[in-house]
Amino acid sequence: MPTMLILNGPNLNLLGQREPEVYGSATLSDVEALCRAEGERLGFEIEFRQSNHEGELIDWIHDAGRRCASGELTGAVLNPGAFTHTSIALHDAIKAADLPVVEVHISNVYAREDFRHRSYISPVAAGIVIGFGVHGYVLAIQGMAELSSSG
Amino acid sequence: MPTMLILNGPNLNLLGQREPEVYGSATLSDVEALCRAEGERLGFEIEFRQSNHEGELIDWIHDAGRRCASGELTGAVLNPGAFTHTSIALHDAIKAADLPVVEVHISNVYAREDFRHRSYISPVAAGIVIGFGVHGYVLAIQGMAELSSSG
Amino acid sequence: MPTMLILNGPNLNLLGQREPEVYGSATLSDVEALCRAEGERLGFEIEFRQSNHEGELIDWIHDAGRRCASGELTGAVLNPGAFTHTSIALHDAIKAADLPVVEVHISNVYAREDFRHRSYISPVAAGIVIGFGVHGYVLAIQGMAELSSSG
Amino acid sequence: MPTMLILNGPNLNLLGQREPEVYGSATLSDVEALCRAEGERLGFEIEFRQSNHEGELIDWIHDAGRRCASGELTGAVLNPGAFTHTSIALHDAIKAADLPVVEVHISNVYAREDFRHRSYISPVAAGIVIGFGVHGYVLAIQGMAELSSSG
Amino acid sequence: MPTMLILNGPNLNLLGQREPEVYGSATLSDVEALCRAEGERLGFEIEFRQSNHEGELIDWIHDAGRRCASGELTGAVLNPGAFTHTSIALHDAIKAADLPVVEVHISNVYAREDFRHRSYISPVAAGIVIGFGVHGYVLAIQGMAELSSSG
Amino acid sequence: MPTMLILNGPNLNLLGQREPEVYGSATLSDVEALCRAEGERLGFEIEFRQSNHEGELIDWIHDAGRRCASGELTGAVLNPGAFTHTSIALHDAIKAADLPVVEVHISNVYAREDFRHRSYISPVAAGIVIGFGVHGYVLAIQGMAELSSSG
Amino acid sequence: MPTMLILNGPNLNLLGQREPEVYGSATLSDVEALCRAEGERLGFEIEFRQSNHEGELIDWIHDAGRRCASGELTGAVLNPGAFTHTSIALHDAIKAADLPVVEVHISNVYAREDFRHRSYISPVAAGIVIGFGVHGYVLAIQGMAELSSSG
Amino acid sequence: MPTMLILNGPNLNLLGQREPEVYGSATLSDVEALCRAEGERLGFEIEFRQSNHEGELIDWIHDAGRRCASGELTGAVLNPGAFTHTSIALHDAIKAADLPVVEVHISNVYAREDFRHRSYISPVAAGIVIGFGVHGYVLAIQGMAELSSSG
Amino acid sequence: MPTMLILNGPNLNLLGQREPEVYGSATLSDVEALCRAEGERLGFEIEFRQSNHEGELIDWIHDAGRRCASGELTGAVLNPGAFTHTSIALHDAIKAADLPVVEVHISNVYAREDFRHRSYISPVAAGIVIGFGVHGYVLAIQGMAELSSSG
Amino acid sequence: MPTMLILNGPNLNLLGQREPEVYGSATLSDVEALCRAEGERLGFEIEFRQSNHEGELIDWIHDAGRRCASGELTGAVLNPGAFTHTSIALHDAIKAADLPVVEVHISNVYAREDFRHRSYISPVAAGIVIGFGVHGYVLAIQGMAELSSSG
Amino acid sequence: MPTMLILNGPNLNLLGQREPEVYGSATLSDVEALCRAEGERLGFEIEFRQSNHEGELIDWIHDAGRRCASGELTGAVLNPGAFTHTSIALHDAIKAADLPVVEVHISNVYAREDFRHRSYISPVAAGIVIGFGVHGYVLAIQGMAELSSSG
Amino acid sequence: MPTMLILNGPNLNLLGQREPEVYGSATLSDVEALCRAEGERLGFEIEFRQSNHEGELIDWIHDAGRRCASGELTGAVLNPGAFTHTSIALHDAIKAADLPVVEVHISNVYAREDFRHRSYISPVAAGIVIGFGVHGYVLAIQGMAELSSSG
Repeated sequence: MPTMLILNGPNLNLLGQREPEVYGSATLSDVEALCRAEGERLGFEIEFRQSNHEGELIDWIHDAGRRCASGELTGAVLNPGAFTHTSIALHDAIKAADLPVVEVHISNVYAREDFRHRSYISPVAAGIVIGFGVHGYVLAIQGMAELSSSG
Repeated sequence: MPTMLILNGPNLNLLGQREPEVYGSATLSDVEALCRAEGERLGFEIEFRQSNHEGELIDWIHDAGRRCASGELTGAVLNPGAFTHTSIALHDAIKAADLPVVEVHISNVYAREDFRHRSYISPVAAGIVIGFGVHGYVLAIQGMAELSSSG
Repeated sequence: MPTMLILNGPNLNLLGQREPEVYGSATLSDVEALCRAEGERLGFEIEFRQSNHEGELIDWIHDAGRRCASGELTGAVLNPGAFTHTSIALHDAIKAADLPVVEVHISNVYAREDFRHRSYISPVAAGIVIGFGVHGYVLAIQGMAELSSSG
Repeated sequence: MPTMLILNGPNLNLLGQREPEVYGSATLSDVEALCRAEGERLGFEIEFRQSNHEGELIDWIHDAGRRCASGELTGAVLNPGAFTHTSIALHDAIKAADLPVVEVHISNVYAREDFRHRSYISPVAAGIVIGFGVHGYVLAIQGMAELSSSG
Repeated sequence: MPTMLILNGPNLNLLGQREPEVYGSATLSDVEALCRAEGERLGFEIEFRQSNHEGELIDWIHDAGRRCASGELTGAVLNPGAFTHTSIALHDAIKAADLPVVEVHISNVYAREDFRHRSYISPVAAGIVIGFGVHGYVLAIQGMAELSSSG
Repeated sequence: MPTMLILNGPNLNLLGQREPEVYGSATLSDVEALCRAEGERLGFEIEFRQSNHEGELIDWIHDAGRRCASGELTGAVLNPGAFTHTSIALHDAIKAADLPVVEVHISNVYAREDFRHRSYISPVAAGIVIGFGVHGYVLAIQGMAELSSSG
Repeated sequence: MPTMLILNGPNLNLLGQREPEVYGSATLSDVEALCRAEGERLGFEIEFRQSNHEGELIDWIHDAGRRCASGELTGAVLNPGAFTHTSIALHDAIKAADLPVVEVHISNVYAREDFRHRSYISPVAAGIVIGFGVHGYVLAIQGMAELSSSG
Repeated sequence: MPTMLILNGPNLNLLGQREPEVYGSATLSDVEALCRAEGERLGFEIEFRQSNHEGELIDWIHDAGRRCASGELTGAVLNPGAFTHTSIALHDAIKAADLPVVEVHISNVYAREDFRHRSYISPVAAGIVIGFGVHGYVLAIQGMAELSSSG
Repeated sequence: MPTMLILNGPNLNLLGQREPEVYGSATLSDVEALCRAEGERLGFEIEFRQSNHEGELIDWIHDAGRRCASGELTGAVLNPGAFTHTSIALHDAIKAADLPVVEVHISNVYAREDFRHRSYISPVAAGIVIGFGVHGYVLAIQGMAELSSSG
Repeated sequence: MPTMLILNGPNLNLLGQREPEVYGSATLSDVEALCRAEGERLGFEIEFRQSNHEGELIDWIHDAGRRCASGELTGAVLNPGAFTHTSIALHDAIKAADLPVVEVHISNVYAREDFRHRSYISPVAAGIVIGFGVHGYVLAIQGMAELSSSG
Repeated sequence: MPTMLILNGPNLNLLGQREPEVYGSATLSDVEALCRAEGERLGFEIEFRQSNHEGELIDWIHDAGRRCASGELTGAVLNPGAFTHTSIALHDAIKAADLPVVEVHISNVYAREDFRHRSYISPVAAGIVIGFGVHGYVLAIQGMAELSSSG
Repeated sequence: MPTMLILNGPNLNLLGQREPEVYGSATLSDVEALCRAEGERLGFEIEFRQSNHEGELIDWIHDAGRRCASGELTGAVLNPGAFTHTSIALHDAIKAADLPVVEVHISNVYAREDFRHRSYISPVAAGIVIGFGVHGYVLAIQGMAELSSSG
């Protein structure tokens, strides 16, 4: 069964416990369950990870690129958290690893502070899903599935 | 049966005939069929329109706001085309009409010219879907359905 | 009896129904009545129009310029709505038509988003009235009357 | 009888004597007479002052705030002159004193140099009147009267 | 006989009546006559239109693209007026319609206000002619003829 | 006994009466008492002043510089209010007078409007204390005491 | 006994060994001793850490947020080093963890390079202490104690 | 017979040999022949020069201004090459020499790098012709002839 | 005997006592003596003043304008100190008073901080003298004498 | 034998496998061999490392600074990858560790995206080598050897 | 007798013949005579040159630096014309040649176009004289004499 | 024997005599000797030139391009001096001449003034060597040799 990787960046481990008016009340475990259910529905194995360390996310993306090249992995859904706006290294990692990535954001970053309006990930993302709350992960998985089947 | 409105802005009537390397080869009729199929699957009547006139799009959004208030309409999926980057009037129309809108773009606008990096629609959009080709309309319809059911 | 034109731009047709905390609860009909009353008090016939179409507003301004040149019209009070911030064509129309214009805004645009801080209309306006709610139309009509009598 | 304060900032004491092509030929005494006449018409006592000292204007605004709180004063019409564009302290004074202020400019500042396009007063003004020559004071007094009666 | 389209944007219907110090005293009818004479000289049928509506110009460009593809039309000379500086939708229309366009301006826009220094049309224009008064249309027609014969 | 000067800029005389959600409910007299108590604890005489006049603050800083040079004064704690963001003259005064200054702000200026993010005082301040409410004065006095003893 | 956390960002482990003209000659151990002494004086247990890894600092802030919620921890004094100017992830971590933070800088960052003038931490800091050398930690601890007692 | 001057700036001596995808395959000699033919057709003597030295171009413009004043010369067609974007001295030379100049560019500079979007020559040019390849020289000569006859 | 006014802005009273490496060791009294000597040489009475108050400088400029109009005063040499960079009110005062002003700076402001590179006085100054130390006053007096004799 | 450290930042572990049109086909092992050969030629022991973790690079730089101070290490050649453009912490680490660093980039960063045009490393680098492909490491080692021998 | 060099940049050879409303009616020969007279009065030999070639001006500045070092030359008065705003090479030449330079401008550059507001010469000039017409050369010679005697 | 060209821009003729703290004490003759030695070692004839004239450098680059095309020349090492930051004409010359260029700077331009941070040469350079003092020429020659052998 093909695998899809779901990567979560900094502070997403706190999801559901803090600022529910922005991010909703679902926890990251709830998101994981949501993703696994959608994966099952579409016939994908789901791998679900979170890290607050930029370097760890880069390592994972490199590894995913290798598995993608061998056909073992379909691609990655990535919620880069605040690294979205500051990490050219993640931008480079995605490009270097030649990894199909769907960028997802729970809240509408374009309705928030100015410093959240630039994404270094968007120019190298295959698709982007923003503002649907945690349901955005479901849409991102579908979008990735669609892209991989039509690619 | 609840209705969902799909609005298309300037130049989208030429879809599929020009610049297929950017926008793909599907025509706007193909997109309409795609939307109707997804609507049927989710139990929504689909209304599908296109205009090159900003004023006409504003009129449609106002009308949609009224129908939404009366429960007849669930919301709108809007591909604002180039008006995305220049029309504060559309921004105001969405806000004034209190219309739930999912913004959709076929190509990845953030990987293109600088003048496409600002969206006046995003700050008033409920959700945003970018870069999945015409399949983005399907995701947007699902996202709108999800938002309306969880709203 | 001399005539004064009152032109309203995009989304003003929704006045009073939406965002009353920003724009107040008066409808555009209420504004029209207010203007007619003030016109009567000062001895002006009032023509009152609204459009969401930039091109239609330009046509009206051209026509008003012709009637002004023939002495039939005193000038125009213009609430350009969101076109204030984006329409160089309206700026040119006012200049080309040589039409005396008083720009009016119901809310204080300078206390709102950054993208509302630039007006393309102000540099070609004879006078500007901002932030008095719908009563601003009354002040604008008086100001126009004063300008025309002292001009 | 309720009182309305008219405050004039730097260089307005020279009104009428210099640059009449920009500011007209009326002197500040003429403006005072105009204001007193309008005050009488509307039933307001008029206090009329001018200062070239930012600190003195701040002191007056503080004092006015106190008198407003006690119901003795309705509000202030303020022509801040060049302090419009440089004084955050006046901005803070108006806010701190909780004083209703109508900002007035004789000439159209938005048709002049770039450095006159930003007003630190506008964001804290209740209303703004620009470009009607000295008649703008009359409109500003009416506007203030209207705001205070409808407030 | 091959056809060439001459499109005129907002406010050009007022040509010759207003601001002759900027635009000269020729009317749009004079320009049309000038274009027809040059068309006749070079063996082109001339179609000549003007609109103040951005949407109408887009529709005409789309239609022209189709006629160009069928060989019926050689291309378009476009004076976009103020839309030059604000309309990404016209930019997209020209690109989407794959229409050869020569951009023409009567006055020297680069010697005027800052907000006229950016043209969204220039990057998609085949050629640009600026500042020759109405004679610029004649040069533009020749340039278009040359481009089509050498293309 | 060594003396420490506490200088307060524009609008701080209104402290405690207005906008308590930003500045708290303590009055400037309360702040003075707080400072005197801390001065007593650390063995400093406290001089406490406020002015809305930039020129007066400059005069005081010059005088303080002279008294500092003679050893009579330890330095100054300065809350420059809105002059923080606009007064290069105060910047120069501190430098010219060679006066050790601790800059203090009651509220967190970096969490407020953009125009409060630049301080002309900070580059010439010995130390900076921001956001602790009126208790910031106590910290500033301690910091000044520490700097003078370790200097 | 309540606990206070002191967190130090990148390069602070080198304190006292390098660039003493900017940072002074005290080592990080000296700072720790200073903090422990002040903690003892005020009745707080001090935990003192340093990391060059952004991810580790985020983990620590998350953990501190949890302990704060349970009442075990009072808050954190944070010297974010160079991450001050680049890390939106730390900004988000503080907000997400709902952790009271006092930002401290040894040197006056506003008197240094332009790229040190923006702090992503300041908008989410409860208080800010800058430029008092290592004594700033002592002030920050007092400020945090004050904030927690008055909060 | 009246004379027209054709001036070519830096690197144009390499025309046709390099980057033919941008500049076409015609050499500068071909351009000269083209210009002479058009001059003959319109009754102008053509002087044709090229220099990589800004100072030499200034000298030529000064000399041309003198000859223009004496009626010997009609004006100059100038392709300033890269000096377009950097030379205020050429701007001043044209103004000081009071020389009618038509600016011509072979390629569409507005479709190239950002640093080619500003022309210091355009504000002092009588007319501008861009993007028609070497045929632009022919149009420029006609435009100059037209301007001189209608001037 | 005609009179020339020498005005000195904020902090110039400290001249010679502080930062001699920037401003030299001459005191303001020395400058006054220098000016009186030059005035005597050229046949001008010298009035010499300094103020740290912007409002007082404005008052003096107004008064000087009146005396200039009556022929009693030749003009003013103005060292505006830090107000150079922030005071639009002084800019307006000079213009409103129609006072010939020579701006003088002791140090080379263009070799210092960025925020000293903009002068609001320069656009309304008749002449500007920068960087000659206190001798600049002598040159400015001569320049003013020359301008008044040739004017 | 003196040692030279070669540090490689994020994504350089993928060298040679991806985007060979930008980075060439040599792998990081090839680069290491190249460096060891050059080290041997010049009499330096080579230590060669790569990390995707900013914190790890900082730790290595600190350690290298200590070894440099003790004479064990000559300096470091650093390819900071994408951290070049975002990491002030690396900038500070180099400065704090007082480590001689030669910055090297395989591709010409100044011929790529805008966001790669700013290097935080360059201002603290002893030398910079850009655009020679992997051979740049050889030049950088020589440059470092030269700097250390002439230092 | 010591010598003073007067250097004139591009277009100054046309002085007096063109744009007399900006530059006056004196020719460069008149300026030369003026300078020679002033030189004679102060005991300096005057060398007077003009060039439209940046390279030639650089050569002259280098040569002047050598003569200055040998005591043969006092310094240079430089009117850099338009090179003021574009030539970093002249900036470097002055610095490299260690030549005392007084920058002079006939017209007030700060009252003209924006692109004339930046001077690359000012930061390396010993003194600056602007706006006194051709008399500015006389003041500049005096200033240079004063600087050399007090230096 | 293949030839390599070493080109030096403005002010480099003064090398070693001025500002040795920035550029070192080697003269341009020393640099030439260094280059000839390295050329000899690598089997290249060295041609070494300097000019303060932009046009002359362009001529040399054109000529070098021709010789390169004929195989007589390997490429050029170019130290463009201050033209680095201002000359788009040199940028174009390198591109037009299709000449392999290695850009070299003696000092670290990125550690100096802001206006030295932009290089118009870098985007068209094959390689870049910065900050190694005059030894950078040696590295640049090697780099050019390597590029030509591997090209």
